[in-house]
Amino acid sequence: MTRILARHLPILTWGRTYGRETFVSDMIAAVIVTIMLIPQSLAYALLAGLPPEAGIYASIVPILIYSVLGTSRSLAVGPVAVVSLMTAAAIGDVAQQGTAGYAAAALTLAALSGGILLILGLFRLGFLANFLSHPVISGFINATGILIALGQFRHLLGIDASGHTLPHLVQGLWQQLGNTHWITLLIGAGATGFLFWARSGLKPLLLGVGLAPRAAEIMTRAGPVAAVIVTTAVTALFGLDKAGVKIVGAVPQALPPFTIPDSSTDLVTALLVPALMISIIGFVESISVAQTLAARKRQRIDPDQELIGLGAANLGAAFTGGYPVTGGFARSVVNFDAGAETPAAGAFTAIGLAIAAVALTPLIHFLPKATLAATIIVAVLSLVDLSVLKRAWIFSRADFAAVLSTGLVTLGFGVEAGVSAGVALSIALHLYKTSRPHVAEVGRVPGTEHFRNIRRHDVVTDPALLTLRVDESLYFANARFLEDYIANRVSEDSGLKDVILQFTAVNEVDMSALESLEAINERLRAMGIGLHLSEVKGPVMDRLRRSHFLEDMSGDVFLTQFEAWSHLTSPQAQPTG
Amino acid sequence: MTRILARHLPILTWGRTYGRETFVSDMIAAVIVTIMLIPQSLAYALLAGLPPEAGIYASIVPILIYSVLGTSRSLAVGPVAVVSLMTAAAIGDVAQQGTAGYAAAALTLAALSGGILLILGLFRLGFLANFLSHPVISGFINATGILIALGQFRHLLGIDASGHTLPHLVQGLWQQLGNTHWITLLIGAGATGFLFWARSGLKPLLLGVGLAPRAAEIMTRAGPVAAVIVTTAVTALFGLDKAGVKIVGAVPQALPPFTIPDSSTDLVTALLVPALMISIIGFVESISVAQTLAARKRQRIDPDQELIGLGAANLGAAFTGGYPVTGGFARSVVNFDAGAETPAAGAFTAIGLAIAAVALTPLIHFLPKATLAATIIVAVLSLVDLSVLKRAWIFSRADFAAVLSTGLVTLGFGVEAGVSAGVALSIALHLYKTSRPHVAEVGRVPGTEHFRNIRRHDVVTDPALLTLRVDESLYFANARFLEDYIANRVSEDSGLKDVILQFTAVNEVDMSALESLEAINERLRAMGIGLHLSEVKGPVMDRLRRSHFLEDMSGDVFLTQFEAWSHLTSPQAQPTG
Repeated sequence: MTRILARHLPILTWGRTYGRETFVSDMIAAVIVTIMLIPQSLAYALLAGLPPEAGIYASIVPILIYSVLGTSRSLAVGPVAVVSLMTAAAIGDVAQQGTAGYAAAALTLAALSGGILLILGLFRLGFLANFLSHPVISGFINATGILIALGQFRHLLGIDASGHTLPHLVQGLWQQLGNTHWITLLIGAGATGFLFWARSGLKPLLLGVGLAPRAAEIMTRAGPVAAVIVTTAVTALFGLDKAGVKIVGAVPQALPPFTIPDSSTDLVTALLVPALMISIIGFVESISVAQTLAARKRQRIDPDQELIGLGAANLGAAFTGGYPVTGGFARSVVNFDAGAETPAAGAFTAIGLAIAAVALTPLIHFLPKATLAATIIVAVLSLVDLSVLKRAWIFSRADFAAVLSTGLVTLGFGVEAGVSAGVALSIALHLYKTSRPHVAEVGRVPGTEHFRNIRRHDVVTDPALLTLRVDESLYFANARFLEDYIANRVSEDSGLKDVILQFTAVNEVDMSALESLEAINERLRAMGIGLHLSEVKGPVMDRLRRSHFLEDMSGDVFLTQFEAWSHLTSPQAQPTG
Repeated sequence: MTRILARHLPILTWGRTYGRETFVSDMIAAVIVTIMLIPQSLAYALLAGLPPEAGIYASIVPILIYSVLGTSRSLAVGPVAVVSLMTAAAIGDVAQQGTAGYAAAALTLAALSGGILLILGLFRLGFLANFLSHPVISGFINATGILIALGQFRHLLGIDASGHTLPHLVQGLWQQLGNTHWITLLIGAGATGFLFWARSGLKPLLLGVGLAPRAAEIMTRAGPVAAVIVTTAVTALFGLDKAGVKIVGAVPQALPPFTIPDSSTDLVTALLVPALMISIIGFVESISVAQTLAARKRQRIDPDQELIGLGAANLGAAFTGGYPVTGGFARSVVNFDAGAETPAAGAFTAIGLAIAAVALTPLIHFLPKATLAATIIVAVLSLVDLSVLKRAWIFSRADFAAVLSTGLVTLGFGVEAGVSAGVALSIALHLYKTSRPHVAEVGRVPGTEHFRNIRRHDVVTDPALLTLRVDESLYFANARFLEDYIANRVSEDSGLKDVILQFTAVNEVDMSALESLEAINERLRAMGIGLHLSEVKGPVMDRLRRSHFLEDMSGDVFLTQFEAWSHLTSPQAQPTG
């Protein structure tokens, strides 16, 4: 019982030894992360098409819940760019942006996503996330980064344009380009330029003027806050909102509200698939950040418990006016670097944000949307790394195909189509590759008990004996390949008396492969050729013993290939080469 | 050029040496097969919902074409039970049985199916058939056999009932049971009983009365012909058709007509998926028969050329009033057993059937449909073999799940849903299995250079050294598994200095696995632990060399595990118990 509690409530483990020193570390980290999160949360809400406060709300209760249930000591949970875009794409199909139905659908999406993650966690189905291969994720993240950045151009230009795919976005921007609002563009371009410069140029500058490295680091992280303060002040002072600059406007001055997600069947049906995608993409992003950070301190992450923690966090978002959340890369790294020792840092961040929600919201009334767009663009462009295409091309054409097609389908047809196409292609390519395994004809390396490929080595072979080493598990996708291979190989060669299959690399034999082996055995028997196996692994042997194959087989099973050779070879054996 | 011609026109190979003796063998086989095919062709046309002559037509030109293009010396191509049922199911969705549109749709289906097979053959895509695993095929064939047999009960009972799924069939039969036509039932039950008895009882009886074994065999094969003759004669003599016994009726007395398949977009779109399924199921049935028979004479089958042969045969069916065809099991075995030496036997069979189409059709006017139903029931029940469920259960639960679910979905939702569900489940189960590979922690067998699982053997281990043998190729579905496994294993063990991954069974490393290896390397480095590889296969090494991994890796690559051990082990190495 205690073990189960400890497993599902990691807080019981770290809470027991919580002391003053840890508290101070956590507190400092929380302050830094809070400063970073205020503009980021507002910006991601804008990206999701939701009112700005939704981003703040989504950062409060979910963090608190995760700090109790999550296994990572450093993960910071909240709205992230990719999930925000996926939210906008999913809800855009069922409701009009800006309506009450839109915000309600976001709650339903968070609830569904939370439910799915919880179920995956409770049934230990986290391995499903494996079907998102790295090439698919790379292609997807790159394409999403481009879509997000391009989607924000309308806020920079102060125009009306929409779309969730590259053709729509480009078309929309192109048609509206003539309506560019120049003051907005000035603010937006200025903020973007400042933020890009701040990423690389601010820290050396601050160090140069004599600031301590820690302080310089914090001030660099606060770059977006500076941009927010300056542009808000300028807009308010000169009344630029009256000149047409779009601003955030009135934001309720309140703690997160208690909300109940809409559970109408139509809405749930429409959002189920997007919620599944958001859950899995979010989980993959979160778990890789968590594992990378945990490794640095030799801590461990339990993927199934992470699913439970993230699931509960999303349910929390659904009931407190938020939208789907996950563990973010940038905020988690900042949290870790700032010295967070335990999930308590997350709880303190939540308190900081709650204070901001109550006290600071009037101050952002005049914040231009263009500034938030600049924040998003600078954040997501760091996700775009096209060098993966080159690396994939060099490494393997199949992986390259997966990166490229996921990326192009995402750009052309949206996020859900992109992920689906990538997963389907990865599986198809894997099956294709394993369906034509490498089969080596082997002979004996003279003077040794080793057997190697006759095409690569000078080995001794016997014209009456054919040994094939299949470098793959035998299962349905390649069972017939082996049948064809042996049928062809044997029909060419009338002097053969025995065929040995060397099973070194065969980790599994399924029923299709078993029936193929039976067919091979029968056909070889019809030709008067014996079939033998060598070096069969324990689990494979156990499996074969549960069938009639071993009794029906015309030949024997040998422990080693050398034993098989010694027993079956004739005096004519001679070197090739 | 000659080689390409010889490859695509196998007739050039066997035709060159064709002599008198072969001619006699082929001729005898053709006579026996013709006798068997007349009732069978009529019956399968009935099963497909087509007029009886369609079955004869589908047996003439396709056989001729296959005899020129096919690589099997014994395969007999024509209508078969499973494909006939699939045809009925596919066309039933787009046209009303008995209308001109129905027969026209059958031509389109044959043309599409022929086109698909040709394309698969020309692009050498025959491996796609591998994705139908043996369990899926078994489940499918068993369920189809049951559906076909049950579907014929309406002809035995002389009632109107239809349906392509078990619930519909049972419901239809149940509702109409009161309308049973008793004379029809008498004929049907009599014919069924006779045919079942003839399968096992007739041959011993004939041998008992002194007939030569060969003659007894032929007469047994002619059992259905006897049933046809007797029931037709009885029906004609007593005018049973006027009493309500449904008969075949007027059949055109002619050679196959020249027909042009309807190519309207709607029809083609509706039939494309069914045509794909029919092509693949038909190809799988055909190729396994062909390979089994070829092996008995050390002949070889070229799967890609078989696709071309079957594709052309189906196009032939489409242009001569037929419907989709493939290589049938029963007719091919009879052809082989009767002594067919070359595809010329098929051509002679085609001539025999052409004569039948012109001369014998008036004689079958009074043939009761119940007799044909009896022929079908007896033929397909030999396909039903539920023992596969037991064998699969014993051999592997995953294969059992595939057999059972394919069977149940086919019975409950029809042939296309069944095959799709089976393929999807097989792939999912395969991915699931390989996503959690067997990982053995190995130690040195004392006094040898061998390394074995520490849980199964008494081996020497070193507390500072962890060696893991992963029994699976590393790819996206299991990459994260290895990350988790190592992260957990290492976090428990603070004395570790080095981790060796023994790559004996790793046949492939894809980009996801590469990135996982990089992550493992970085995380271990962060803990001060070295990562090493041993026994990496050539192709995997080539692949790794195309990335930065080997340079970034904190440790080394060792040719053998023993070398790695010798290099890294410390004096504390000690036996485990």
